[in-house]
Parts: sequence; C-alpha cells; structure tokens
Amino acid sequence: MKQAYCSTLPFWHKLSENAQDRFCANLKPQKYHRGERINGGISCKGVIFIVSGCLRVYMLSESGRDITLFRLYQGDVCMLSASCVLPQITFDVFVDAEEDCDCYVIPGAVFAEIADRDMNLKMFAYETALTRFSEVMWVVQQIHFMKVDRRLAVFLWDEMMRTGNELIPLTQEQIAKYMSSAREVVSRMLKYFASEKIVKIFRKGVMVIDKKRLKELALAE
Amino acid sequence: MKQAYCSTLPFWHKLSENAQDRFCANLKPQKYHRGERINGGISCKGVIFIVSGCLRVYMLSESGRDITLFRLYQGDVCMLSASCVLPQITFDVFVDAEEDCDCYVIPGAVFAEIADRDMNLKMFAYETALTRFSEVMWVVQQIHFMKVDRRLAVFLWDEMMRTGNELIPLTQEQIAKYMSSAREVVSRMLKYFASEKIVKIFRKGVMVIDKKRLKELALAE
Repeated sequence: MKQAYCSTLPFWHKLSENAQDRFCANLKPQKYHRGERINGGISCKGVIFIVSGCLRVYMLSESGRDITLFRLYQGDVCMLSASCVLPQITFDVFVDAEEDCDCYVIPGAVFAEIADRDMNLKMFAYETALTRFSEVMWVVQQIHFMKVDRRLAVFLWDEMMRTGNELIPLTQEQIAKYMSSAREVVSRMLKYFASEKIVKIFRKGVMVIDKKRLKELALAE
Repeated sequence: MKQAYCSTLPFWHKLSENAQDRFCANLKPQKYHRGERINGGISCKGVIFIVSGCLRVYMLSESGRDITLFRLYQGDVCMLSASCVLPQITFDVFVDAEEDCDCYVIPGAVFAEIADRDMNLKMFAYETALTRFSEVMWVVQQIHFMKVDRRLAVFLWDEMMRTGNELIPLTQEQIAKYMSSAREVVSRMLKYFASEKIVKIFRKGVMVIDKKRLKELALAE
C-alpha cells in the first residue's frame, strides 16, 4: 500500500532509485483526528501528504484570534509544516486536522537530506511552497487589507434583512456589480466564505448558513 | 562593465557557458529615478538586479493605502517584479525606486527561458522568492495581525510625552520588557520603523524623528 502510494507522487519518477527507496522507507502512515493540532509554534512536524480528509493552515495572533491561510485536501502536500526543510522559510504556521485525516508523513530532516541530493525533490518543495505564498498573499490582500470580506458580509447581511430570506438569488456577477468590485474577487471570497461554512453557493444564488459569523464579519472594524 | 557585473552574480559559475552568454547578452543597464514607479498592477517588468540605490516593494489597497513589504538594496534581486517568471506567483506587487538606482534588468521571458533549461537559475529564482515570502509573512503577522507596530508606537509616544524628549534612552531589551513582548520582535519592528524613517536607532536608545507618523500609528485602530 505504501509502495503503491509512493509511486503516485508527482516527483516520484524523477527521483533516482536510491532516493525513491530512502523516501518511501521513511514515509509513515499517520491518522489525525478531527480538531487535532498537528503543527504549532516552532515545531517542524515534517512534510505531510494528504490521502483523505482536510487540514487547515492558519496563523494565530497573541490574542488568540486566528486567520485561515488555506486548506489542504486529498492529493495536497503540506510543506509549511516543515519549516526546517526550507531554510528560506523563517516563519511558522499552525496546522489542524479539520476532519479525520489519513496522511503520510516524512520527517523534515530526511526530506531535506534527500532533497539536497536530488534537485527534482527540492524543486517540488519550492514550487509547492511558492504556490502557498500566492494563496497567502491573496488572503492578506483581500481580508486584512482591502476588507472585501467585510464588504461582502455587509452586502449579504443587508440583502438577507431586506428580503427576510437566507437565500440570496443573485449571481456572483450581480453581487460584484452591486458591490462595485470585480467578479473574480467576489467569486474567490464567496468560495472562502463557503470553505468557512458561512454560506453555501448554488448555481443561481447564495444561501447564508451561519448568520452569527456573517454578522460578526459585517460588524468587524 | 556588464560582463564584470555578470560574473559577480551568485549563480553565475553554476550556469552553462551557453546560458551565461544568453543571460549576459540580455541584461540591460537601467537607471531609475527617486520616486519612479517601476512595477505596478499586472505588469511584469523583469528581474531587477540592484547595483546601487533602494527599491521599495509594497501592496496598494483599493483606497490607495499602501504597506511596505520589504526594501531591496545593493546586491539584492527583485524577483517579484517578474511574476511572469514564476508560474506559482499569481499576485502582483508595486515597486518604486526609493532613491536613484542603478540596476540591471533582464526581461521576464528571457529569464524564464534560461531558467527552464538551467536548474541552477531556476533554483536561485525560487530561493529568492521564498526568502521574500518569509519577510512578507513577518510584516503581515506583526503589523496587520499582532498589531505590534501600534503597541510600539503607543509606547514610544507615551515615553516621549512623559519625558518631553524625542530621545528615549532605553535599550531594545528594556523596551521589550515594558511592552511584554520579545526582544527580537521589538528589535525587528524598530528596524522597520527606522527604515520608514519614523525613528533613528542609537546604541543606547531610540530617537523619534517623525512625530506625525508615530502619532498616526499610535492612534490607528
């Protein structure tokens, strides 16, 4: 089973046979339970390959407030839980299991050692980390900077109050127009709201499913 | 001169002769004037090598507010001004010349083409971009999330008011203790304030040089 899983990894057939053996021998199956803290503070849990379930990667403030940076699902790789692997990464993130998860984990030190001798593995690590950089920048720009989350929350809340209905029968195009924002921005933010289980997205509208959090967002300063 | 400069680049001696020739032939000297906008919106200016001067890399909000992500000086390379080079980078940043600058610039497309055939150049691009990821995360965490900037500004402002003196004769260790924060956090934030010309740092204290901005920071919500 482990051998079969290894051979599905995107970099697998680019590794030397030696590197393949060492990699697969050190990859350990691991179950995480819903709600479990997997990585936090200055720990270096290792590189996590997700077979099923969902991991949430987030930052935590001194006051305990958290912000979701991104979620990882089946087939994704959690690279930032191994800040020891990439010397350029000098920050730490928190990682929780949002659902029960089946994963494979390889210790950071072993991954780093193989990657040092095999450029293809290193390249994979860099590319994965850089993709997350882009996701994080998007969250930062939209949520902490442009406040699109608040504007969208205010809009949805007002619509719900106005019509007395949790179902808001507007397309993303229409919502963007009402908010004087770009459709793509609204679309990504709605997906973010959906992943946070604040709304459900339908083909022709949006359903508010967590009124409490929507209101909190709308009232946030 | 250009040839001499090329040979000082950190990845130079790892490139094939072919790649060296193509790289150096496409590297163009470029002067930027203080205050000039070099990169903005969805442009891909190319990869910029800084010979002298200072570039400021920042995000701009819809309302025109900006936040400095980092500054680049002599010997640094601006990779994020070439989002076309790294397909994983899907965001754009603004880049201004903060002082008159002498630079070398290589078009993104040429850089990408050479990097595609030469892993060492690609590796350099990835490593440079990931280093910036860490700097950006630090700024995001401290400034937009943990509000250490505001706490430090409040502390410095109060000290200045209390003593009636712009010179605050406290070590960074002492300031950290008063603020119940870590010395390293205070030290990095003071450096950030210094780079924004809000304070000057001396061996045994801090001098406030821009009271207006310090007050704005202290009063920010």
